[in-house]
Amino acid sequence: MARNLTMLMDFYELSMAYGYFKMGLKDEVVVFDMFYRKNPDNGAFTIVAGLEQLVEYIKNFRFTDDDIDFLKNTKQFDDDFLNYLKTIRFTGDLYAIKEGDIAYPNIPIITVKTKICEAQLIETMLLLTINHQTLIATKASRIKRASRNKLIMEFGARRAHGYDAAIYGSRAAYIGGLNVTSNLIAEKNFNIKAIGTMAHSWIQYFDSEYEAFKAYAKIYPENCILLIDTYDVIESGIKNAIKVNNEILKPMNQYVKAVRLDSGDLAYLSKKVRRILDDNDMKNTQIIASNSIDEFILESLVEQGAKIDAYGIGERLITAKSDPVFGGVYKLSAIKVNEAFKPKIKISENIEKVTNPGFKKVYRVYNQQKIGVFDIIALYDEKIDLSTIELVDQDNPWKRIKVDPSFTIKQLQETIFKDGKLVYELPSLEKIRENTQINLESIWEEEKRFHNPHKHHVDLTKKLYEVKCELLKKGN
Amino acid sequence: MARNLTMLMDFYELSMAYGYFKMGLKDEVVVFDMFYRKNPDNGAFTIVAGLEQLVEYIKNFRFTDDDIDFLKNTKQFDDDFLNYLKTIRFTGDLYAIKEGDIAYPNIPIITVKTKICEAQLIETMLLLTINHQTLIATKASRIKRASRNKLIMEFGARRAHGYDAAIYGSRAAYIGGLNVTSNLIAEKNFNIKAIGTMAHSWIQYFDSEYEAFKAYAKIYPENCILLIDTYDVIESGIKNAIKVNNEILKPMNQYVKAVRLDSGDLAYLSKKVRRILDDNDMKNTQIIASNSIDEFILESLVEQGAKIDAYGIGERLITAKSDPVFGGVYKLSAIKVNEAFKPKIKISENIEKVTNPGFKKVYRVYNQQKIGVFDIIALYDEKIDLSTIELVDQDNPWKRIKVDPSFTIKQLQETIFKDGKLVYELPSLEKIRENTQINLESIWEEEKRFHNPHKHHVDLTKKLYEVKCELLKKGN
Repeated sequence: MARNLTMLMDFYELSMAYGYFKMGLKDEVVVFDMFYRKNPDNGAFTIVAGLEQLVEYIKNFRFTDDDIDFLKNTKQFDDDFLNYLKTIRFTGDLYAIKEGDIAYPNIPIITVKTKICEAQLIETMLLLTINHQTLIATKASRIKRASRNKLIMEFGARRAHGYDAAIYGSRAAYIGGLNVTSNLIAEKNFNIKAIGTMAHSWIQYFDSEYEAFKAYAKIYPENCILLIDTYDVIESGIKNAIKVNNEILKPMNQYVKAVRLDSGDLAYLSKKVRRILDDNDMKNTQIIASNSIDEFILESLVEQGAKIDAYGIGERLITAKSDPVFGGVYKLSAIKVNEAFKPKIKISENIEKVTNPGFKKVYRVYNQQKIGVFDIIALYDEKIDLSTIELVDQDNPWKRIKVDPSFTIKQLQETIFKDGKLVYELPSLEKIRENTQINLESIWEEEKRFHNPHKHHVDLTKKLYEVKCELLKKGN
Repeated sequence: MARNLTMLMDFYELSMAYGYFKMGLKDEVVVFDMFYRKNPDNGAFTIVAGLEQLVEYIKNFRFTDDDIDFLKNTKQFDDDFLNYLKTIRFTGDLYAIKEGDIAYPNIPIITVKTKICEAQLIETMLLLTINHQTLIATKASRIKRASRNKLIMEFGARRAHGYDAAIYGSRAAYIGGLNVTSNLIAEKNFNIKAIGTMAHSWIQYFDSEYEAFKAYAKIYPENCILLIDTYDVIESGIKNAIKVNNEILKPMNQYVKAVRLDSGDLAYLSKKVRRILDDNDMKNTQIIASNSIDEFILESLVEQGAKIDAYGIGERLITAKSDPVFGGVYKLSAIKVNEAFKPKIKISENIEKVTNPGFKKVYRVYNQQKIGVFDIIALYDEKIDLSTIELVDQDNPWKRIKVDPSFTIKQLQETIFKDGKLVYELPSLEKIRENTQINLESIWEEEKRFHNPHKHHVDLTKKLYEVKCELLKKGN
């Protein structure tokens, strides 16, 4: 697992680093924020994931001799710089919202405070890691919720965008709430239970569907799940499943644990199959469905009263088909000048692309029912006192918000690296998955719906808002 | 690069393999075809990619002791099977359409003929590898064509679905016709030229845009490309670019090689910037554009007469945003019985999902202008004589097709592995990319358009059609 991905970077990270180095600026300390602007699928929030892989990357961040030779051969950098790259490590601080926590647009998910070349060189991998896993964890959470908490199996490997999309996609899907995976390497690497029974090819291999089911039942009497749509679900598949149940399994005190539908009208077929199973004394046999399902199809299946006990979800999860681009960005927010942090802003013609300047902290405010009602972004050295605080709504800056004094507050980012040292104990994947569930219970139900969800407020402190206005007025 | 991905498989490959093993069938030889049913983005064809990585995988296909220990601990398999897995290697034949070749729905891209457990265990990785790279190569080719052959830079790494999506995505994009990449590791691994200049953070770091441009020009006088949209393209960016050109670069006999637009109305701004550059004696300065561009936006930019010389294409390419699922499948088509191949079919309620049975070969037929006019799928031992052949149109089976005797024919699949040995010389990436271009010149222009392209005909030989009808009648 100690793959060195230091060279996975956009070339401009290196051309900028070289520029700073040549200007003698390499030891200048800067602050960058990673955040995103838009929730996938017009949802209200995201489930953060990927921090563990980011930590691994940063711990392993170093150019090998081979990398340096390669860079030398490009003839774009001088020896001083190459010697510097040989010894470069991450020496700064990194603050991050935990995996399984909920994030909203424009709050800093990760804040990096370190020497400028280091901050620049880690940009691509930081974004790639967090963008990918956050996208999939968020999608998985939507799917799990749309199923009304049914057992969901991640089946995406064959349609993933490369090996890591399959491997880390399984991990992120598990964080988002999925239960098991088809991906064996995900069990080996992450201890996510891997499951699977048969493909259509198993059925085709035998001279008849009945022979195929019989053979399978004899080998797996305790875990007999039969794929019943190879020829015709009603005319053939379910009949053969019942026959094998009665002829092979019953005498062994076993039964067909489930039948799987992988094509056709899942709402119609599942109801019909349920009735046939019930009429044949197979009430304990479950129905599993798969075939290009996502949260929207799940909503419709639930609404139609489909009789499905568990789902296999593949391509539309692993590619996040309905909205596959997660646009997390990484923006310079401050430069350390003497002992202070000089705020920096990125102005844009699109008002929603203007960044929040300064070295910042982010807080979530909870009501008495422990619901996270809004977030506050503040400057790092502001004392937050809810009874006196004045806040500015980012979207409606003329509004001034006062806070109910019974509310409580929590700082969202944890310190992950301090002076280059990992000071954060990485939780187990089980703990991360639990964290997701705990977090989902602490947001409004209205934020969880798929159509026009409640928009979570993210407010700025008055002081931060003034800093922002000042920079906007100055024009940079 | 010798990463062992043998454990990246859907668990059902293993449960089926165990089933075959327990039934004493492990040495039975079968034939599987990999093909797809639908072109991405309603196009007419795909550009095949990924074979080199598939070859690497198959060469490295073996379970490590560690894998075997892990599988033993799952308590799902007996020692006989685990001992068998310890020694399993790919021992059969694999035939494939070359990288950079053009494929159409339902033609076998890859055909595997080997012992049943081997054939089954490689399924997931085979699909994952070919599905991913074929998707991206096809998308890249569309983008390159839509740009009217402009210089296209692949900028996707930060929005890719994991590390391999970035790494092999760069490779596939290059096969599809893109020119360069931002991804440094793609240059190191595949020798694709990596390029890059500056991000908005470079501009923000300095006290003014002018200072930022000046610093950059001094460090990179020969390769000065300036990002001009940080504050305001017309009021600030282009003015500062001209100033730096005249004050810093001209005295060094250099000039600003290009300016980059990364936001705003690219059609409008590029025309305005072009005019300003021309009016300021900077006719050689090129304009580069980026910002969520794909083939549809490119068509529109071309149509509006945008003055853009090169494009950076990121998220919509690397995620294939408009159609991110490439649904290649892998289906059992024959079983070796004595010395013959018994054809197998997969029937489905959806007529388009019925497979073509048998151990097959696929041919492309060219007219006198060397245009590939249609494809023929035949049984592997059929002699193809164009002057006498009778063909059946898959979509309109009542039609009988005769072939113009002046046409020529080419078998599409090459033998890659023979009896487990790699017998194919992998071409260089440059050769593969050239192959794509050569192939694109050998298809109808009408297949290249994005809206209602001509549908390429894929016909069956009469003999294969009769085999198919026979199996359909029998019902399995």
